[in-house]
Amino acid sequence: MDGDHDGHALAQVSAQAMWANDNASRGLGMTLVSVAPGEAVLSMVVRKDMVNGHGICHGGFMFTLADSAFAFACNSHGEPAVAQQCAVTFIRPVREGETLTAHALERSRVGRGGIYDVTVRAADGDAVAEFRGHSRTIGGRSPSTKSS
Amino acid sequence: MDGDHDGHALAQVSAQAMWANDNASRGLGMTLVSVAPGEAVLSMVVRKDMVNGHGICHGGFMFTLADSAFAFACNSHGEPAVAQQCAVTFIRPVREGETLTAHALERSRVGRGGIYDVTVRAADGDAVAEFRGHSRTIGGRSPSTKSS
Amino acid sequence: MDGDHDGHALAQVSAQAMWANDNASRGLGMTLVSVAPGEAVLSMVVRKDMVNGHGICHGGFMFTLADSAFAFACNSHGEPAVAQQCAVTFIRPVREGETLTAHALERSRVGRGGIYDVTVRAADGDAVAEFRGHSRTIGGRSPSTKSS
Amino acid sequence: MDGDHDGHALAQVSAQAMWANDNASRGLGMTLVSVAPGEAVLSMVVRKDMVNGHGICHGGFMFTLADSAFAFACNSHGEPAVAQQCAVTFIRPVREGETLTAHALERSRVGRGGIYDVTVRAADGDAVAEFRGHSRTIGGRSPSTKSS
Repeated sequence: MDGDHDGHALAQVSAQAMWANDNASRGLGMTLVSVAPGEAVLSMVVRKDMVNGHGICHGGFMFTLADSAFAFACNSHGEPAVAQQCAVTFIRPVREGETLTAHALERSRVGRGGIYDVTVRAADGDAVAEFRGHSRTIGGRSPSTKSS
Repeated sequence: MDGDHDGHALAQVSAQAMWANDNASRGLGMTLVSVAPGEAVLSMVVRKDMVNGHGICHGGFMFTLADSAFAFACNSHGEPAVAQQCAVTFIRPVREGETLTAHALERSRVGRGGIYDVTVRAADGDAVAEFRGHSRTIGGRSPSTKSS
Repeated sequence: MDGDHDGHALAQVSAQAMWANDNASRGLGMTLVSVAPGEAVLSMVVRKDMVNGHGICHGGFMFTLADSAFAFACNSHGEPAVAQQCAVTFIRPVREGETLTAHALERSRVGRGGIYDVTVRAADGDAVAEFRGHSRTIGGRSPSTKSS
Repeated sequence: MDGDHDGHALAQVSAQAMWANDNASRGLGMTLVSVAPGEAVLSMVVRKDMVNGHGICHGGFMFTLADSAFAFACNSHGEPAVAQQCAVTFIRPVREGETLTAHALERSRVGRGGIYDVTVRAADGDAVAEFRGHSRTIGGRSPSTKSS
C-alpha cells in the first residue's frame, strides 16, 4: 500500500466482500454507511422482533450492531481479524422504531492485536451504548484481496 | 418469601411473564430451559441468518443468547433489573446448525447491583464463550408479581 | 458554574483536595501533571519495587496509575465519584526506570454514571496500556467545595 | 506430568520461582497462601500508604492483589503466561487495616488463552471485588522448570 488512497480502496474492497457474505448483519436490516482504514459506520432500525421482556430493545441487538461495526473496522486493513473479547455499557434504553448508528474507531493496533471503540447513537445524537472490542488477526489475507 | 420453594416459584412466575413479552429471544428461536433463583439456562440453534462474513456464527448472537440468560437470572428475584455493562470472550468459532446452551449463574448481589457469569457451550460440551454481566435493579416489583 | 473558567477552577480545587489526602498515589511517586473538567494527566516512574516475577512492571501498578488518572478526571466536576468497574488491556511490557504517563478523558457522563478512557504511554509515546473506567457519583459535594 | 501429584508439585515450583523475583507483590506485603494447578490464594493487609483521597483503599491495590493471584494461577502449569486484559468490579469500600484475601480460579484454558476469576474478600467473608483476567502463554517453559 502506498498511501491513503490505497488504504481506502482496500478498506472498501474488504468491506464489500465481507458484507456480501454477512447474512447476520444484512438479516438484521443493517446498512453499511461507510468504511475507511480502522473505521466503520453502520446503522439499523430497531424492529419489533428486537424488543425484550421489558418492552425495550434487547441489549443483544445493540451489541450486535456495535460488533458488526467493530468487525468492519478491524478487517479494513486487508488482514482477516476476529473478535476475541468485547465489552459494552448500556447508557439509556432504546425503543422500537429508533434508528441506531454505530461508529467504530481504531484505538490501538500492535502486532496481531487491535482495540476498537464503538459508540452507538440514537437519531437525536445521544450515545445509547459504548462498546470496546479486542481483535486478533488470524493469518493470511482477506479472500477479497488474495488476488491483488 | 419464606424459603427455597417460594424463591423457585417466584423465579418461574417472573420468567414466564418476561418470556411472554420477549419478542427478541423468541424471535431468535431460543428455548427457556430452566430458571431458578439467580440462575437461568437458555438454548438456541445457530441459524443461517446468524452467520457472518467469515462464515461463522456472528458473535452478536452468541452475546445475545448469553445476555438473555443473564436477564432471566437477574430478574429471577422478583425485582426488575436491567443490564448495565457486559463483557464477553469468544473462545472458539461456532458453525450454522450447532445448538448452543447458555447457563447463567449469580456471582454477587449487593444492594442494587448484581454480577452474573454465563458460560455458552456447544453440544459437545465445549465452552465457546464466557460472559460476565452487571445488572442494576430499577425499583418497583416485576409486573408479574405486583398483585402478589 | 458559568463557564469554562469556573469549570477549570473547580477541577483544580477538587484535585488539590483529593491529592492532599491521596497517600496511595503520592506513595507510588505519582505526579499530578494537569487536570481539567473531565480530564487528568498523571505520571509515574516504574520503581524497582514495582517489578514482578517476570522482570517487568507488575500490571497492577500500570492499572493503579490509570485508575488514579481516572479518579481525578471523574472527580473534576465537584461531585464525589467512585470507581465501579474498570478494565485494562496490557499492550507491551514496561521495564524498571521507564516513565509512564496516563491521560484520562471523559467519554460519557449521564445521570450518576460516567465512562472514562485512559491511555498509559511510555516516554517514547507508545501506548502500553488502555483502560476504561466506569464511575458513579455518591451524592453530596466534594469536601473541598462544600464551603464555596 | 502423570497426574495430580505432579501437577501440584509443578505449581509449587513455578510459584516459588516467581515469588522469589516478585518485588512488587512482596513489597506490598502480600502473603502467598496457597497455589495449585489453575488456582492461587494471596492475602494482603491494607496499609496506610494504600489509602486514597476518599479515605478508602485505592482500587489499584485491590486490583494488584487480584492480579497477583491471577498471575500465580495462570503460571501454575509450568508455561510462562502474561496478563492481556483484566476487568474488576468494586463491590464495597475497604478501610486501612483490613486483611484482604484473593482467590483465583481457572475458568477456561484453550490453546494459548486462559480466563481466570478472582474474588477478593474482606476478613468477614464479604466479597469486596470481583476480577476476571485473560492470560496468554508466551512460549518456552518457566525458568524454574527448564531443567526438569
